[in-house]
Formats: sequence, structure tokens, C-alpha cells
Amino acid sequence: MSASTWHPDPRNLKIAYIGGGSRGWARGLMADLALETDIAGRVALYDLNPQAAQVNADLGNALADNPQAPGKWVYTAEASLEAALKGADFVFVSILPGNFDQMEIDVHAPEQYGIYQSVGDTVGPGGLMRAWRTIPMFVEVARAVEKHCPHAWVINYTNPLTLCVRTLYETFPGIKAFGCCHEVFGTQTVLAHMLADMRGIQGVHRREIQVNVLGINHFTWFDRASYGSLDLMPIYREFAEKYRKTGFEIPEEGHWANSTFASANRVKFDLFLRYGLIAAAGDRHLAEFMPPWYLKDPQTVKAWKFGLTTVAWRKKDLAEKLQRNNVNLKSSGEEGILQLKALVGLTPLVTNTNVPNQGQAADLPRGAVVETNVVISRDSLQPLMAGSLPPAVHALVSRHVDNQEMVLRASLARDEELLFQAFVQDPLVRIGLDEAHTLFTYMLSETTKRAPR
Amino acid sequence: MSASTWHPDPRNLKIAYIGGGSRGWARGLMADLALETDIAGRVALYDLNPQAAQVNADLGNALADNPQAPGKWVYTAEASLEAALKGADFVFVSILPGNFDQMEIDVHAPEQYGIYQSVGDTVGPGGLMRAWRTIPMFVEVARAVEKHCPHAWVINYTNPLTLCVRTLYETFPGIKAFGCCHEVFGTQTVLAHMLADMRGIQGVHRREIQVNVLGINHFTWFDRASYGSLDLMPIYREFAEKYRKTGFEIPEEGHWANSTFASANRVKFDLFLRYGLIAAAGDRHLAEFMPPWYLKDPQTVKAWKFGLTTVAWRKKDLAEKLQRNNVNLKSSGEEGILQLKALVGLTPLVTNTNVPNQGQAADLPRGAVVETNVVISRDSLQPLMAGSLPPAVHALVSRHVDNQEMVLRASLARDEELLFQAFVQDPLVRIGLDEAHTLFTYMLSETTKRAPR
Amino acid sequence: MSASTWHPDPRNLKIAYIGGGSRGWARGLMADLALETDIAGRVALYDLNPQAAQVNADLGNALADNPQAPGKWVYTAEASLEAALKGADFVFVSILPGNFDQMEIDVHAPEQYGIYQSVGDTVGPGGLMRAWRTIPMFVEVARAVEKHCPHAWVINYTNPLTLCVRTLYETFPGIKAFGCCHEVFGTQTVLAHMLADMRGIQGVHRREIQVNVLGINHFTWFDRASYGSLDLMPIYREFAEKYRKTGFEIPEEGHWANSTFASANRVKFDLFLRYGLIAAAGDRHLAEFMPPWYLKDPQTVKAWKFGLTTVAWRKKDLAEKLQRNNVNLKSSGEEGILQLKALVGLTPLVTNTNVPNQGQAADLPRGAVVETNVVISRDSLQPLMAGSLPPAVHALVSRHVDNQEMVLRASLARDEELLFQAFVQDPLVRIGLDEAHTLFTYMLSETTKRAPR
Amino acid sequence: MSASTWHPDPRNLKIAYIGGGSRGWARGLMADLALETDIAGRVALYDLNPQAAQVNADLGNALADNPQAPGKWVYTAEASLEAALKGADFVFVSILPGNFDQMEIDVHAPEQYGIYQSVGDTVGPGGLMRAWRTIPMFVEVARAVEKHCPHAWVINYTNPLTLCVRTLYETFPGIKAFGCCHEVFGTQTVLAHMLADMRGIQGVHRREIQVNVLGINHFTWFDRASYGSLDLMPIYREFAEKYRKTGFEIPEEGHWANSTFASANRVKFDLFLRYGLIAAAGDRHLAEFMPPWYLKDPQTVKAWKFGLTTVAWRKKDLAEKLQRNNVNLKSSGEEGILQLKALVGLTPLVTNTNVPNQGQAADLPRGAVVETNVVISRDSLQPLMAGSLPPAVHALVSRHVDNQEMVLRASLARDEELLFQAFVQDPLVRIGLDEAHTLFTYMLSETTKRAPR
Repeated sequence: MSASTWHPDPRNLKIAYIGGGSRGWARGLMADLALETDIAGRVALYDLNPQAAQVNADLGNALADNPQAPGKWVYTAEASLEAALKGADFVFVSILPGNFDQMEIDVHAPEQYGIYQSVGDTVGPGGLMRAWRTIPMFVEVARAVEKHCPHAWVINYTNPLTLCVRTLYETFPGIKAFGCCHEVFGTQTVLAHMLADMRGIQGVHRREIQVNVLGINHFTWFDRASYGSLDLMPIYREFAEKYRKTGFEIPEEGHWANSTFASANRVKFDLFLRYGLIAAAGDRHLAEFMPPWYLKDPQTVKAWKFGLTTVAWRKKDLAEKLQRNNVNLKSSGEEGILQLKALVGLTPLVTNTNVPNQGQAADLPRGAVVETNVVISRDSLQPLMAGSLPPAVHALVSRHVDNQEMVLRASLARDEELLFQAFVQDPLVRIGLDEAHTLFTYMLSETTKRAPR
Repeated sequence: MSASTWHPDPRNLKIAYIGGGSRGWARGLMADLALETDIAGRVALYDLNPQAAQVNADLGNALADNPQAPGKWVYTAEASLEAALKGADFVFVSILPGNFDQMEIDVHAPEQYGIYQSVGDTVGPGGLMRAWRTIPMFVEVARAVEKHCPHAWVINYTNPLTLCVRTLYETFPGIKAFGCCHEVFGTQTVLAHMLADMRGIQGVHRREIQVNVLGINHFTWFDRASYGSLDLMPIYREFAEKYRKTGFEIPEEGHWANSTFASANRVKFDLFLRYGLIAAAGDRHLAEFMPPWYLKDPQTVKAWKFGLTTVAWRKKDLAEKLQRNNVNLKSSGEEGILQLKALVGLTPLVTNTNVPNQGQAADLPRGAVVETNVVISRDSLQPLMAGSLPPAVHALVSRHVDNQEMVLRASLARDEELLFQAFVQDPLVRIGLDEAHTLFTYMLSETTKRAPR
Repeated sequence: MSASTWHPDPRNLKIAYIGGGSRGWARGLMADLALETDIAGRVALYDLNPQAAQVNADLGNALADNPQAPGKWVYTAEASLEAALKGADFVFVSILPGNFDQMEIDVHAPEQYGIYQSVGDTVGPGGLMRAWRTIPMFVEVARAVEKHCPHAWVINYTNPLTLCVRTLYETFPGIKAFGCCHEVFGTQTVLAHMLADMRGIQGVHRREIQVNVLGINHFTWFDRASYGSLDLMPIYREFAEKYRKTGFEIPEEGHWANSTFASANRVKFDLFLRYGLIAAAGDRHLAEFMPPWYLKDPQTVKAWKFGLTTVAWRKKDLAEKLQRNNVNLKSSGEEGILQLKALVGLTPLVTNTNVPNQGQAADLPRGAVVETNVVISRDSLQPLMAGSLPPAVHALVSRHVDNQEMVLRASLARDEELLFQAFVQDPLVRIGLDEAHTLFTYMLSETTKRAPR
Repeated sequence: MSASTWHPDPRNLKIAYIGGGSRGWARGLMADLALETDIAGRVALYDLNPQAAQVNADLGNALADNPQAPGKWVYTAEASLEAALKGADFVFVSILPGNFDQMEIDVHAPEQYGIYQSVGDTVGPGGLMRAWRTIPMFVEVARAVEKHCPHAWVINYTNPLTLCVRTLYETFPGIKAFGCCHEVFGTQTVLAHMLADMRGIQGVHRREIQVNVLGINHFTWFDRASYGSLDLMPIYREFAEKYRKTGFEIPEEGHWANSTFASANRVKFDLFLRYGLIAAAGDRHLAEFMPPWYLKDPQTVKAWKFGLTTVAWRKKDLAEKLQRNNVNLKSSGEEGILQLKALVGLTPLVTNTNVPNQGQAADLPRGAVVETNVVISRDSLQPLMAGSLPPAVHALVSRHVDNQEMVLRASLARDEELLFQAFVQDPLVRIGLDEAHTLFTYMLSETTKRAPR
């Protein structure tokens, strides 16, 4: 217990990156590493697409000559998971589980039955199918970590994030893993903008907003928020009342109707006025956890001023990204790098992450993966006691915790019947049992048929 | 802890009966007491309708002359709750919270919105409204017990049973109370008939069927059942498969279509084939806890071979009962009398009751009122560790546990907004938010307007 | 969960008996089986001493011709653990871990340092040493059960009972095992005699005394006791006060000074008058769990009217038993046979056993093996929620729970330093650290040196 | 839950100080406030000795003219607890419970029986007697806070600290209280000196040493310690081995033999070498929680190189302090002021405090007051999940948790028998029962007789 067996050298770290061919998260991390002077080392990129990993490795190594990139790192593209993990101090996991053809089924097949999903990667019919194919991959990751780098810290960005982390711990209980997501940061940013709008306080950075984080990933809540000695909860009430009808858009994000990811926060305001807590994720995610109040049909979605992310858009977006062969040398705004430095021992950090519940979420079951604040320090991640959700929000969250447990059990045992039980208990699925069964069977067979090979 | 302060004299007990004017449960208990020779004493009847209590008291006292009634008890009708409770060793509570005009709203108002309820007294829109008006009554009972007979054992038969018991403990944590219900007995009886039908074993009494009881009242489950060395679970699978389409009716109960309470157990069989556990309540109750798979509309209900209990029928039934001015000297089949004797110390008893969860239901929250087996002995009720429900059934039950907690909080605080949150989270309520609000507001105002005064 | 995979045929059971050469417990069970008509089958005896097992097998088979032995069983002496366990429905474990030469060290070596032990097989220096050599044997048993009969019920009588059961579950978490001990029965018998002495109620059988059992084996407590409607706790207070000085001896047990196992119950009375709970084990066992109040020196022991069991006596007793080559056809008074029949499904049973704490002992850690009442029925053992000990008794018990956990960890890891930490934290060990270390080292080397080979 | 009702103005705080006449802690806080520019307000001093409070108030107000004291505070001496508490945002409690004549009995009476105590204010016979008279005072404080300033934050420095905080929560469960102690800081300082001694790293401040804190006040442990990326646990092992015999003294603290509070840390090293964890309190405190290994007699104490603090010394020290009528304008090194600013919302703080266990100490009972790290932010104190102690240390700590619970129950109920049970279960009390009873009775009557009136 007292004997830490993890003693990485901050000047010679080894980071393994699973999904290392990615154009998004991987390059964000590469930029963050390049801008960092306190740590150095090498990054082993692993991807099912080896060429994509090699492209990123080349880009990363080219940074060594860039005078604006003080951080010095050596990149390699690895041919096997084992080679990437061997001797790693950190493991990042950011993969697309499957392909966009499968995701097309996840998101759009249910629309034939009047079930609309704004993202389709977490809960709802799409989230379930995605979990069904992702969980076996994370079993494999957990086993490889246990074998090749059991003391490494594993940081996961892949969705469905909760179930990915849950699978890692279920497979290798001794793993040191957590899941990271920026949705909470976005809500802190909304609060910063609120301070400007409602109180004329300009230029507040989201990290200056103190919040108590409670819930599960993409369905996270604040029951306390403050800026210095200012309690933000009463101000948020005024704010939500002021903008409940029109919505409030953050200028730099662009108009919600023009952007796949933006929204006018109307769902967030509605949830606050109903439940008294600040829902801390984008409206697109929040809407999917509720009964189809906000996702009844495309008109309803439009009226609530957020968007349905189509897979056609994702395909187009990827094609554009594939054109860009550079790393944008600008901080990603993510906290991966801060977490890494905190774990090495450089600067302790209080932030929100997703780990199994040891009691930090007092009203949720032990072992369920929950999102709360934690303190990260040398070789240590300690959740803060975050308290309990009020009864109505507890009931909303608890349903999904139960459903996710079913999805986990079903996916580990490849038990299609149990998966169907989870399917029909999802709040978005309000169709008849027979219809539900037809849809379920179709999605399951298509997700199998379209699997990459 | 070790010092029991409750030492009733078995030959001179005092029983208080709240709702003592009832034609049903009260007279059942009167019959059971009259047939009992090991105990004696007096029964203080209290009812909001003093005349009804007096009628029952007169009937009870007349039994003293009946040679077929060896049990000797003196009955009084009391003018106040205080007079009834003072010095009581036992308190029975079996009341109709409100009146049939209110229940008409509970059950039938939601039908305008396509929401059908087969009973309407436990969950669903009707159960919620009933709880809203019942909980304050049980706060009053708990306070009176604390004041007048804090060491008495309180046995509740009133619905919504879970919330009545929960309210008693919430108000007076030191209370010794439990809730009793015969739905589990009915399911044991189904198993006894199964033995005859499937194995030719005749004449088994339900008490000879050993079961492990898990869940909440009216939504209770068996994960083990045996008769002697015979494991009944595999036999039940054959049985459910044999009768899944036609249903199976217990001969003495009459045809389901002619009886308000009978059913052909098709819902029970369907739940078993889906989840692998025996649902241990009547189909009418079970259907209300599920999404509207079985209660979609009257045709669906008919196809599943159970009935919607109308309040018109209840009114007619009561009118008939009011004609009968006698006590039917036959065992009620209830266990109240066995529990009473076990508590006095005469014969220890293993039976199912509803009490706050101390861990007997391992997967449900502490403090929630759960139904499991318990051992009753002198001044003692000890739950058995009943284990956990499998994930899919857990999720079904857990939703209602969460909802009931909301209803409790809302009703104690008279918080209509929180009650509405529970309302829209009930699985039977799948209508739009606005419609739901209209229905909710209507039901709430009508239940208030029609309250007895 | 719902699917029991254990379906023994009551007329053709297979019982494995590890330690099957024993003259005591094994023959007791043989007598009980011979007297039983509801079940039949075969008994596979296994013993490190194969001849002893064969002697018992021959005796057992000879019973078949005895007209007073209606129960028909076939006995075999098996050459291997595997042969004994293969296909077993039940496994009894009753072994002497090591030999009397080792036990001589357990009990008598500490006397050189002024540490007296009346039994030396549970806690104290002797109990620790015995655990140190027993735990690896039970690891072996658990592994063999997992391999050869994973669904069998395992009933352990071996001391240190708590740690034997704990080891079984630690090694094979899926095991269905419990530990049985008759000390509680002896205390019920004291209460039956108390009824005669204090109230003139003759002939009460111990099973008619209802008790709530709480604690750990050999240090078990009653916080409730009743006989019919009679609360025995206030009577016990009078009784303890009456006999606190003289003691009270049960006639048939013989005078304490002439019998190794008898006592005058003075320790029991003293504990009651201090703590308000009935200590439910023999005084010889109870004294060892306390600071050396009762075991200060042989004079003190004599004054408290119980005896120090010498190993010399045990050797002599065994020699006498070895002369007797018969089975005494009389009920052993043990409950093994009742438990077996309850597990088969014949008659449910409420009794006290030792199993891991799931919450039945609310104030003791989960997983610790505790002794409480349980309900045994077909393929099922369910603890009753027994509640909490009062703070002072909790503190006494809790120390030993902590110490036993240390002994377990130490013995599994063969960590002598950790075992020494447990040694110096035992309440009987009040000598200086250096002396303690000398004694410990001596005992450890002797127990190793004298091991049977 | 989400609605904070505590909105103090950082420029106009009200602090109540109970024990406001103190020469030590009160003046330390006065200095800290005077040096602080971010907050301002008034301080209401309350003391049983009104003159002492007035002296301090005058000193405090005089600071307003001191140019080196930028913090501006108005001091008043209040005649009643009510006046001090009314409207308070913060309440500090730092009192001497009783007087030095009582403390003389606490510390020195047991010496007649060979029981030596180095402090006598936490556990052991002296700690128990002190708790017995302190707990009623804290019942009074809790009731007054509930009445006059229920939302104020209460910071306690009084010993026995654990039981003072426990009493506050037991009396007023809604209180926002915690206990602060600098013993952990002292151990961090030892680690800073270790870095200089063992690695040549000079000038490290204790706040730069990251530690995981686990245990109870004055018997606290580190199972992790780091400085930047340096793991301090293996270095501490070398350090403890190097100085196990000679001890290691921190230069500025003076030689242990000349100072009441200094030590050579030999007890700390011995505990580390036995248990593998860093004991995080002064040796004087640590020794009292163990069996009398270190406190056998004055010679033993001297050999371990720490001192017995006599009450004669305390009396002399106080007399000297009473001469000094000034506030030493130098930071106290305590964290009260940092905690206060963090609670106001100015700078979040990770520090160690004592609060009821919600699960942060996974192996200790819920509700017990434990010392772990917490995060303090605006109107919020959140414990970090600190994990579990290893079995041997758990057993050492757990005994005291159990004993303290007994002392609490005994003191609240004024139950002398239960207090005696705690007395004889304290590890320092190894004398015979009769002697123990004589000593206990004497101490109890003297503590009552000598009470201030």
C-alpha cells in the first residue's frame, strides 16, 4: 500500500497512445506536449491504421525543429499494442470503436421509429450498440495493460466513456485508469460568460470557477458554483429565467444553427428551472439522457435550439481533417497534460474525472463509474466526497447507472437478451415491445455486418 | 438494546385497530381472533366513521356467545385515536385514505390520456395521488404512536403500503412497524397448483412452499422456490412455457374475466420468460410497475387476461358489504394473527413483510422499505439477508424505489413541483410534458376538492 | 442466481468427511446418521491417518446390521482428498491441525511468561500458532472443493473455527461453507437450568429458548433471550446476582473441578454484570478473549471456578478413546444432521452458524466471519440481521476481529512480522516487547519443528 | 442542498472566539489576522474569564495603529456566549476544559499505579477524564451554535479534539465544524529536514511535501509522501534506519531533553520500521496510543528521547505567558487563516482536518471523526478518499475509535460504568481490575471536586 512501484523520470517519460492515428485528440496532445518544458520523453503511437499513426509520428518528430515548440519528444509508430505499452508510464486511449458506417446505424436507424438522437454515442439505442462493440476492445486493452505495464496510468477519452472505464476496472481491478471529458469545462465557460452578461465581470477563465461536480459522464451536475466569494447559484437562476425562451449563445462558438456542437443552452436552463441544479454538459448530450422531451422530433429539437449531429457531417468533417497535415501549435484546452504533470508529482491538481465510485457519489452504487472532482498528485488520484444528488435528479441518473450495468454485463457475456432488456429500459425508447425488438435486431445485425475487418 | 420494555400478557392483550369500521380486513381479523385460544384481551376500534366502528364492536362482542368462537375478546369503539392507542400492545392500521370519489380520479382521470391502471393504489398517477393524501395521515399515526404507545408493534395493511411504512419510520424512527400483504401468498398458491398440474402432487399448502422473497411491495420477486427437496425453478420454466399463451387459472378463483381480482397469470409468465425470476404479486399489480407493455389499452389488458378494477365496481362491492352484518367465522388466510402470536413469543415465524432496508436487499438503498422474508419472535422482527436482484430486474425495481422516495419527500414537504417530477418519471406516464402537467394539475385539484371533511 | 445447480437425492447423498478417522466428532455424526430415516447414502472418510479412517468405516458399515440403527449408510475410507470429495453433496471438516506435541507448545510455552490459556486453540498465543499452521491446510481444502465439488456444502468444526471459515471463503469466494460450534447450545442449556432454578419451570429443552446471537465464535453474545412469552434477560440478571460469588453448576456436567470442560459460569455472570449481555460460550473460552482478568494465574482461574485444559489431559483422553471401538448409538446433540436435512430441503431450520458478514452483524466489518442466527433451507443459508453490540462489547469483539484479520493475512503470506504484530496486540499478551519476541520466536520454531511429516 | 445560505462579506466578517482570553492560540490568530489584507471585520472574544478576554480585545484594537499590521479588525470582549455567536460567520473554539488542578489529576494520578502519560489530554486515563468534563461543554457550544448562528463554520482547536468534534455533530447534526491540529505539519517538517539530511535538498517548506493523511487526531499516519516527483517513502526507510538508535532532532526545536515539546523522533522511526507507515504526530502523542512500550517508566521514556510534560511545567509556562502583554506580529504557522479564506471563497485549499467519516477512511466506521486531507472552498469542506490502513495499523487505530465511542456515549449519558469500561480497555491501562477501579474512582471524584466554579 505505502510502497509506490511507479517512479517515472519526468525528463524521460514514455507515453503510449492507443488510437494514435487520430486527427483530433492525438494532435491536440501533441501540441500540448510540444508547448511543455517541464517534462520530456517519447510517445509510442499505436493505431489499427498503421499509416495514420506513422503520419502523426512524422508530424510529431518534425516539431523538434520548430523553435516555437520548446517541448522535446520523440515519436514512434508501433506495429503492435505490446510494443506501444511495454514500459509505458502513461497510456492514452482515444479510439473510434468501429467505423462511421456502424455509427450511421447507431444514430439514424432509430429515426425510422421516431427515436432521435443528437449524438448517439453514450446512451440511447446508439450508445448501447456502440458499447456492445467497444467493451470487448477495452477488455483487450485492460488485459494488455495488466501484462505489459500494470503500473501505468491509463487515461481514456473514448465514448461511451463511463462503460470504457468500467470495463477496464472490471477486467483488471488493479488498473490505475480514469476517464476525461471536456463537457464540464464547457459549462464552466458558460458560467464565465454569465458573469460578464449578468454582472459585468469580464475575462474570467473557466478554471477560476469553482464547482462541485456530481453525476455520470455527459449527465453531470453542479450543486455548487462560485467565483471568489460570489455564490453563482442565485445568479444562474436569474440567468436561466432571463434566457429560458431565447437561449444564450457564447459568441465565439458561433450560432447554434450553423454549428454541429453549439447550442443555445435552452435545455440546460430548462433542467435548472425544473430541478435546481446546473446540468454540466452540452445540450446535445443532456437531451439524450431524458425522456424524449427535447428530442421528440426534429422540430422540437430546433425549437430547443440545438442540433442533431448527423453521421454524414462526421464523414465530411473527417475528410477535411485528413487534408490537414499539420499540428496546430496552440493549447488544446484539455487537461490531459495537467493531469500527467500532476501524476508525475509536479503540480497537484483538482479537476473532474470519471472513476469507480468508492463513496464519492454517496447516492450512487459502489463500483459504478461516476464523475466528480478528484485531487491528482504524485501517483495518486483521490476522489472528493461530492455528496448526493437531490431525489428527482438522483432518479434520472440512477436509471442510467442501472442500464449501463446491464449493458456491461450483457456485453461481457455477449448476452443479447440482457442487452435487449437494457434497450427497452432506455428512456428514449418508448415504442412498443415488438417494434423495439425489430429495431434492436436490425441494429445488432447491422453493427456486426459492418464491422471493420 | 438488551432491555426489552415490552412485556404484554398473552391472556390480556390490547389491540388498537385504526380503520376499525372496515368491512373487510377488520372483520377478517375479528374472525381470526375468535378462532384463537392461546391469546385473549381487548380490541379498541377507531374509525373516522364512529358508527362503523360501533357496528364492528357490537359484532365482535356478540361473538362471545358463539360456541364456535373459542377466542374471547372484548371490543370497544373509541372516540379518539388517543383512547384507542393508550396502552396498546399492537396497532393495526387498515384505512381507506380518502374516499371512492377521490379514487375515481386516481384510477380513471388518466384514462383520458391513454394511461390505464388496473388498480391505481400503488404506483402510476393514481398511486401518487393516493400517497400524497395518505402520507400526512401516517405522519399523524406515527406521532400518536410515539406519544401514546411507543413500544407497541404497528402492523400496516394500508396502500400504498411501502410509503405508509416509510412514513411511519421517517416520522418516528424508533417505531416498531411493518407492512403486510397477501400478494406473495397468492403466488405461493400458484406454485402449489403448479405442482398438481405439472407433477401430480396434490394438496400442497402454500406455507409448504419455501421461497426467497426480494423486492418491494406489489413488485416482489422469488429467485428461489422449493417444495421439500424439489427445486421449483426449473418446473416453473416448463410451466410458464406451457401456459404462456393460454394462461393458467386457479380453479377456485373463478374465471379471470368474471372476477375483478383474478387473472390468468400471463403477465407473470411473460416476466419469468424475460427475466428468469418469478414475479410474486397478482398480474394486476405487476403490470402497473412496468412500462405500458401490458396496460397499453383495454384490448391489450384483455389479451393478457387480467382486468382493470373500476371504482364503480368498488362502490358496488362496498354497498353489498354494508348489507352484511356478520363476521364469517373462517380463517382469513392472512398472517396477522400468526405474526401477533410470534411477537408475543408463542411460535416463531418465518414470513415476508415490508420494513426499512438494513441490508437485507443488498442492491437496494438503505432505508427504502423492502419486502423480504423475516423471522418474527418475541418482541423481535429480523430480516433475512435476501441477496440481490439480477441487473435487469434491479433496474425495474430501482426506478420505483427512487420515485417513491421523491413522492415521500414531496408529500412531507407538500412540494407539488417535486411530486410532478415523480409523476413524469413514472413508467406508465409516457405522454408529453404539457399534457402530463395538465393531467397532474387536474388530478391534484380534484383530489383536494373531493377530500372528505 | 435463480438457477440452483445443486440437486442431491435425499435417498442417495454423498458425504465427504475430512478428518474421518476422528474418535469424537466423526463418530457423533455416524450415530446421528444411523438414527435418521429421512435420508440415506454413503460417507467417504478421509484422514491423514488412513488406518483410523478404515477403523471408522468398518464401524460404520457394521451399523447396517444393527436393528436400532434405521439409517442406512455405506462407509468407505478413501486414499485421497480427491476421491473423498469427488461428487460429494456435503463436506464435513473436523481435523486436528498438527499434533498434540505442537499443541503442547501452543498452550504451555506461554506459561513460562505468565500467560495462561484455558484452551489455547482460538486466540491468545496458542490460537495464533494453531492458525498459522491450520490456514494453509484450509487453503488446500478450499482449492480441492473448488476443483472436485464446487457446489457442495462445506460444514467446518475445526478450530480456530472463525479463521478456518474465513480462509475457505478467501481462497474460493464461491464456496458454500459455514462453521458450527456447540458453545451457544451450552449457554441455552444454562438458561434452561436457570428457568428451573429461578422459576421452577422444569424440563425445558435448549431449543425452546429463543436467542439473538451476535459476535464471533467462542466470544458470542445474546442480547435477547426468551422462553415463550417470558423475557429471560431480567431473570438472568437476578440469576447472575444470586450466583456471582458461588457460581452455578449444571448437575449433569459434574463438578467443575473434576471436569476439564465444566465450569461454574462465574465468568459468564461477571461479564453480564459488567456489560448487560449474556456471553454465550463456556467460561474457558470467554476468559481467553479478555485481558487477563480471569486468567492472571492458576489461583485466579481456580477462584473463578473453571479449569485450564492441559495437553497432558488431552493425550490421556485420546488414549482412552482409542480403546473404544464402538459407536455409541445416541444422538450427539449436535445440529449437523439437522442442518444437512434443512439444506436438502426437508425441514427449514433457524440456528446459529459462522459465515462471512454481509451486514448481519451491523457493527462488524463486512467479510469478517461472524456468528449469528441464520435460516437454512433447500440449498440456502441466509443470515438474520442480528443488529449491533453495545459499544463496550463491540470494542472487546472488534479487537479480535482486527487481530484475526492480521493472522489471516500473515498466514496466507507466511509473513512472520505481521504475525508478530498480531501476537503483541492480543489482549492476553501483556509482557514486554522483547520478552514477547523471544516467546514468539520460540513458539514459531517449535511449531515448525514438531510438525507431523 | 444547492442553495447555500451563507454569504459572508469578506470585508466585514464576524468571527466569534470561544476561549478568547487565551494567551496562546487566540493571540496567534490575532497576529495572523493583522497580517492579512484580503479580509477584514470584527472579532468577538468570549471567555469564562471576562478580564482575560478584555485584555486580548484591547491588545487587538491597539494593533489598528500598528503600521506593520495591515489587517484591520475590531475586537470586542463579550459577556455572553449568545452575544459572541449572534451573527457570527466563523466560530473558533480553543478552551482549556477545566483547570490545571484537574489536569494534575489527569496526568499524574495514574503514575502512582505505574501508568505514565506524556501529555494526558487525548487518550489514556487523563484523556478520558478530560473528555468526561469537556463533552458537556461542547454539547452547550453545539446548542448555542444551532440557536444563534447555525450556518457559521466552527473550527475547533480544543483537546481531546476528536471527541470535541464528535460531540458537536452528535448534538447538532447540521453543524459545519472541523477540528484542526498542527501535529501533521510537524511531521511534514521532519520530512523537509530529512530531504536536507539525506539528499542535500535545502529549504523545502512543509507545504511543498505532499502527503496522504489517514487515521485519527494525534494518531495519524502517512502512507504516501512525495516532494515533486520524488517518492519520500523509500528515503524515509533509509532515514529511519540511519537514526533508529540515535534519533534525529530538528535543529531549531532545541534538544529534546531541554524542551517539553521536542523529541528525537525515535518512536516515529520505530513505528515506521514495525508497520511501514509514517506516524504523523509528535512522539509524545504517539506513545500514548500504544501499549506501554514507550511509556513503561521514566527511564524508558528517556531512552526513547522524548519527555513527559508535567503539569507543574504548564503552570509555570502559563505564569510566564501572563506576563507578556503583546501580540507577536509573526505568522503563527497555523492554517486557521488559510481555511477561513478558503471558506470565504478566496483561495481553495487542500489540507488535513478532522471531520466525521463519510467513507474517506474506508476501514473506519462511518461517523467516527477521522483525520484526512480535505479540499476547502467557498462554504464547502470535502474530504478526499484516503483509503485504508494496513491491518496492523488498522487494529491499533480501531481500538481507540471504539474506546472513544464508549467515552462519548458514557459522557453524554453521564454513565460512569461505561466510562470505566473504556478506562480498562485503554491500552495504557494494564493494571489489575481492582486497582484500576480504585484509580478510576479517585480520578473521577477529584476531577469533579476540583472543577472551577
